[in-house]
Parts: sequence; structure tokens; C-alpha cells
Amino acid sequence: MYKHLEPVAGVELASGSTGLRDGDDLVLMRLCPGSGAAAVFTQNSFRAPPVQIAEQHLQAAMPRALIVNAGHANAGTGEPGLQDGRALCQAVATLLGIEAQEVLPFSTGVIGERLPMQALCDALQHMPAELSAGGWSLAAHAIMTTDSFAKGKSCDFNLQGQRRTLTGIAKGAGMICPNMATMLAFLATDAPVTQTDLQAILREVVATTFNRITVDGDTSTNDACVLISTNSTASDPLADSDRRVLFDALHEVSLDLAQNIIRNAEGATRLITIEVSEGCAEAECLQVAYSLAHSPLVKTAIFAGDPNWGRLLMAIGKAGIDDLDPSRIEIFLDDLCLFSQGQVAPSYTAGQGAQIMLQDAFSIRVSLRRGTESATLWTSDLSDDYVRINASYRT
Amino acid sequence: MYKHLEPVAGVELASGSTGLRDGDDLVLMRLCPGSGAAAVFTQNSFRAPPVQIAEQHLQAAMPRALIVNAGHANAGTGEPGLQDGRALCQAVATLLGIEAQEVLPFSTGVIGERLPMQALCDALQHMPAELSAGGWSLAAHAIMTTDSFAKGKSCDFNLQGQRRTLTGIAKGAGMICPNMATMLAFLATDAPVTQTDLQAILREVVATTFNRITVDGDTSTNDACVLISTNSTASDPLADSDRRVLFDALHEVSLDLAQNIIRNAEGATRLITIEVSEGCAEAECLQVAYSLAHSPLVKTAIFAGDPNWGRLLMAIGKAGIDDLDPSRIEIFLDDLCLFSQGQVAPSYTAGQGAQIMLQDAFSIRVSLRRGTESATLWTSDLSDDYVRINASYRT
Repeated sequence: MYKHLEPVAGVELASGSTGLRDGDDLVLMRLCPGSGAAAVFTQNSFRAPPVQIAEQHLQAAMPRALIVNAGHANAGTGEPGLQDGRALCQAVATLLGIEAQEVLPFSTGVIGERLPMQALCDALQHMPAELSAGGWSLAAHAIMTTDSFAKGKSCDFNLQGQRRTLTGIAKGAGMICPNMATMLAFLATDAPVTQTDLQAILREVVATTFNRITVDGDTSTNDACVLISTNSTASDPLADSDRRVLFDALHEVSLDLAQNIIRNAEGATRLITIEVSEGCAEAECLQVAYSLAHSPLVKTAIFAGDPNWGRLLMAIGKAGIDDLDPSRIEIFLDDLCLFSQGQVAPSYTAGQGAQIMLQDAFSIRVSLRRGTESATLWTSDLSDDYVRINASYRT
Repeated sequence: MYKHLEPVAGVELASGSTGLRDGDDLVLMRLCPGSGAAAVFTQNSFRAPPVQIAEQHLQAAMPRALIVNAGHANAGTGEPGLQDGRALCQAVATLLGIEAQEVLPFSTGVIGERLPMQALCDALQHMPAELSAGGWSLAAHAIMTTDSFAKGKSCDFNLQGQRRTLTGIAKGAGMICPNMATMLAFLATDAPVTQTDLQAILREVVATTFNRITVDGDTSTNDACVLISTNSTASDPLADSDRRVLFDALHEVSLDLAQNIIRNAEGATRLITIEVSEGCAEAECLQVAYSLAHSPLVKTAIFAGDPNWGRLLMAIGKAGIDDLDPSRIEIFLDDLCLFSQGQVAPSYTAGQGAQIMLQDAFSIRVSLRRGTESATLWTSDLSDDYVRINASYRT
């Protein structure tokens, strides 16, 4: 659902196939010398071996390559899994004539099975010859697992008088409730930016994009989001206005990818924006928003297109907010007020509610009317297809 | 799913019908003078008018009657809902010749609609004449909403040389994640017990029975659990050994009712016991247990009978426990070890796992191996029927 992914100067990609499934399932990304990378990783305690290795390598060296395989998450595989991940980095390093610690590994797919090392190494042999700056689109497809469409987005911007590009791809459709990180997302720019700025901007943007989506409240063991600059030898921090330009570009691309993950959520039929405002703190707004987003009863009512606002009340009320005064709370579907002063709004009709909830995308807006803070997140509904997919697919 | 419900000396029940649905939907319970009641209520911020009224009345007087209607929850109805609830208590009081504040009202059903006052008052007229000590079984049926079977349990015990009885009924199949309270449960005994003991024992038992079940993580606005003693004029606290006898009886009845709520959970096909042991504190054991019990991916895997232990790892890891060491954790299905030392147990086979998970009931046992505390809860799986039921039923 994207038009065209712009090449980023200094980044080449190749996709390949292990033959273990239909289509490509392996992506090699080569970065020019002088590239830097910032990353955020899953906060799940069972961090998968590739996550552990990528963190170590990022600390030890500037990255020159990324290797991503889809189908096996290499998670819950213990010490043998760490050895497999390291061997894969070494294989890539040998092929590209770089050091193993200059390679960052990423895996997504079934948890608990060893990587198919022979198939991966065989597939890798042909890939260096196929590296190309135009490889983003194929890569967006090759990293998919239960995704039904590829997710990618580019953005052009002017920085310090030069035209720069930021392109990103992401995968994910289930086990989505990122916590300080996300499913897999790879973003790259040729904007000149120091390592410090890169990491700071990534953290800031992830906090309001990838970390504000949830499909099922389930946080993967392999979540990772990486932002590359192929131009990170810059020694000066960005001026505030330049930083804003880069921030906006990254935010635009990240929000688009994050929302597409929700649109593509397993079994999802709706994109729901949940805005909670006028809270005492952002934390309590998020608590209410997640309580709504994770309630199976709210999600099934949305699937049915049923403006069952009793379930909204229930989910707001169970969020565990101290001294919440129900008589002050207002609830809106888009701009339609459905609840205020402790009861259903006098002008509200179920027909109006249903009209809004049958749209592909709509907002649930809750005003707590006790402060000035707010929070927004995006989620999907819960359909019988979600159950069918997850009762038959091996994570 | 129960054999016979024993009468409790001093308690009479009658069931009636408003004609708004097939079968009975109204229960009147009359208590003899000298009865006392302890109760725990929902912690949802949107506490329904009947919950607010029942709390007020309990503080003001010793209860002489309970009135329970199924079909309308009288929640999210604001001041008019409070007036309806009070008028219903007054109608009962007039019929029985008692004070309105001696009546405790309970409602369950659709949130947000006003009580059908005329139909309720009409149905009430015939009920005093039908009060009978043998009315428990009909009452267990009359309080159901989406329940597919009635839940009741009796227990006989010897206290201070006398034979005593404890009988309880409960309803609930969805919006079940009680927090210091539960769906609707009504328990009564003729054991002589002070008000203080009654409340203390109820809180203690609820903490490890009704408050340890979860279907969907959704806490109702109307949860209530009431324990009546028809013999509460006792002035002396129970001796420790007698207290233990009453505690055991209440625990046996409550656990049976709580587990039957899970067996009857919307769309459920399994009763799953989750035991988390060897934690540093009960709280962290519960955090891990609820993370497993509320994970849609874990619940759909169980529905499929698929021993997908990667999802168990994921849910344990996302629970947010500080410094959790994955290499120490052990996971069992019943007595079958499937994960230890950071990887799948060498002896484990998927065939063995599937054999256990295809049973109607089984345990997921997790040892954190970092302390001496533990916690147990009970939950259900997530089926396409859950979605179908909740996409079509109006809570």
C-alpha cells in the first residue's frame, strides 16, 4: 500500500530465498563506510539471540551490513541460538569482506526452532552480486511473516540546503504491543547526523509512533527498530530547526508504517485511533487508552460495528485510575458525543453511533476532565479471523 | 453441573419473570431477623447504581432481603439509575413489610439501559407468596445472562458440634476479571458468626477463588459477592479451629463456583490452571500468571490444542518483571517439563505437549526459581465462538 520507495544514497539491498517457503525470506542490506545506526529493541525479558547480538555489535563497531531472515525467530534457542546468530554474521562478513561485529542480525518468525543455517548460508552466496540501491521494495516483501501486504514509506526533505531522503520498511501483524521498541522496522537516511542525534531522534519518534500501536497486547521477543544514517560522520549536532526537519520526516515515515501494521493486523477490519485527553498525567491517559485497546469486549463490539458504549465505560472504569469521577467523563466517537454527565448524551442515537463505527477508521475520544495531559494510540478490532489465524499459525 | 443445593435455615428464595425474556429473570431472597451479610464489590470506577445502593444499605442496616434482576445492569444510567434502584428496594420493602434500607439490590445484563421498572414491579407482586427454602436451584437459573449452565454448590460441615450448611450460587461467563470482587455470587450459611468474622473470611476466600479467575481481563461494573449468615447475632469471634472449618467450607463452595464460571466462559473449551511458583513476591507471580492468562496468542494456541511454547515464553517475558533471568525459568504442562536452562527441554516432544493440551483441563506451571512465593489462577481459552458471542451480544 505504498507507491514507490526512494533509494537512500549509501544503502544497497538484496533479497534471497532459502527455499523454505514461497518467495523471498532473507534480506541483506549493505551500508557505505561512515554509516551510523541507532536502534531500540524489545523489552521482553526473553530477548532473542539476534537482539542480544545486534546490541553487542552496535556497541562494538559502526555497522556495515544488516542480515534479516523471516520464518525463524531464533528465540528461546539458548546458547545454540547465540552461536547460530554469530555464525550467520560471520558468513555475511566473509562474503562482504568486513568484520562479523560490523553485521547486525535480525530474525522473525517461529519461536523456539533453530535457524536453518545451511539453507541460509546457501541463499546468502548469491546475494552480494544482487545488492542494489533499488532493492527496498523487494526487501519489504521478503521480511513479511503473517503480514498480508508489505509496508514501506519514503519521505524527501531539505536539510541545510540539500535534498535528503528517508526510507523505511517494517513487518508485523500480530504479537504487536511494542514496549520501547517494535516489531521489525528498518529506516535509513542520507541526512548528515551524529550518532547521538540519531539515537535521540529515533527514541523520541518511536515513543509516539511504533510504541503507540497495539494489536493484542503481546510484545514480541524479537522487536527491533533501526534507523541508519549513511552520513553519520558529521561531528556537529544538528541545529534545532534542522533537527525538527529530520524529526518530522522520521515521524511521517514511522507513523505511516505503524498505522499500516495496525491496518494489516491479524484479522483486523478497522483502524481505531484512541485519544484520551484532559488527564492529570500522560501515564494515566495511556492507562485508559490501553485498557480500551486491550479489552476483548470493546474489540469484538467494534468488529460487530456495534456502538456498545457500556463496554467503553467498563474498560475506562477498570483502568485503575485513582479517584476517577465518572460523572465528569465525556466519550466521543469521532465528533459525536455519546456519554457525558454520568449518562448517555441526550442527543445520541445508536444509529449515529453505528454509522461512525462501520467506517474503516474512526476515533474513540475520551476526556477525563481533570487535567491537561493527553495520549493517543492506534489499535485494531478483534475478529473471528484473528482467532482462526492464531489457532492455526505457529508463532 | 451441580447435584442438589441444600436449604440454609433462615433463607427463602423466589424466582419470577418480567416477561422480557424466556424464563425467569428476577430473584427475591428473604433473610430471617438476625442475619448479617458481608460483601465485596467491583473496583471498576463506573460502579453501577445497584452497587452503590447495596453498599450504602449494608452500612445503614442489617439486611432482610436481596433483589436480583438479570437482563439490565442498571449501569451507566446516572442519577435516574440511582432513583430506579432505590424505588425497586422500596417496592420490595413494602411487599415484605421491612425498611427499604434493609433491601440489597443487584443487577446484571446490558449496560446503559434504564431498568424496566413497571415489568419488575408487576413481577414482584406474586413473589412473596412463593418464597421457599428450596428455591436456590431456580434462583441459580434466574440470575443467568450469557451463562449456558447454572452454577451452585452446597457444603455441610460441623461447627461447635452442630451440623451447618453453606450454599452459594453465581452467574458470569464474560467480562470476568474480578478485582477485589466478582461477577454476582450469593452465598449463605447458618453458621453462627459475627459480622467482623464474616467480612474477614469472605475477603480472604475471595482473594484466592473469585479474584483468581479471568476470562477476558474485563472487570464488570456490577460485580458483587455477598456472604450471608442467618445466624450473625453471635457476639464472640470464632475460635481459630472453628474459623478454619467455616473458611474451608466457604473456600470449597467459592472455588467450585469460580471454576464453573471459567468452564462456562464465553466460547471456552478448556479450564486452564496457571501456577507460577518460586517468585520473590506473590505480586510478581500474579503478574506473570495474568500476562499468560490475558495473552490472546497464548489463549488461541490453547484453543487449537497447540503446545506453542514460544508464546508462553513471550507472555512470561512481557510481564515486566525486573531482572528476570530466562535461563533459570522452567515451564511445565501438567508434569511435563517443556522448557529449562534457556531452551526446550531435551526430552520434550510436541506430541507429548499436544496430548496434555487437548484435555478439557490442564495446568501451565512456571517456576521463576528466584524466591519462595507462588500464585495460582484459572482461565479459559479464546475461541472464534468468543468473538461470535461478543460481536452479537449486547453487554
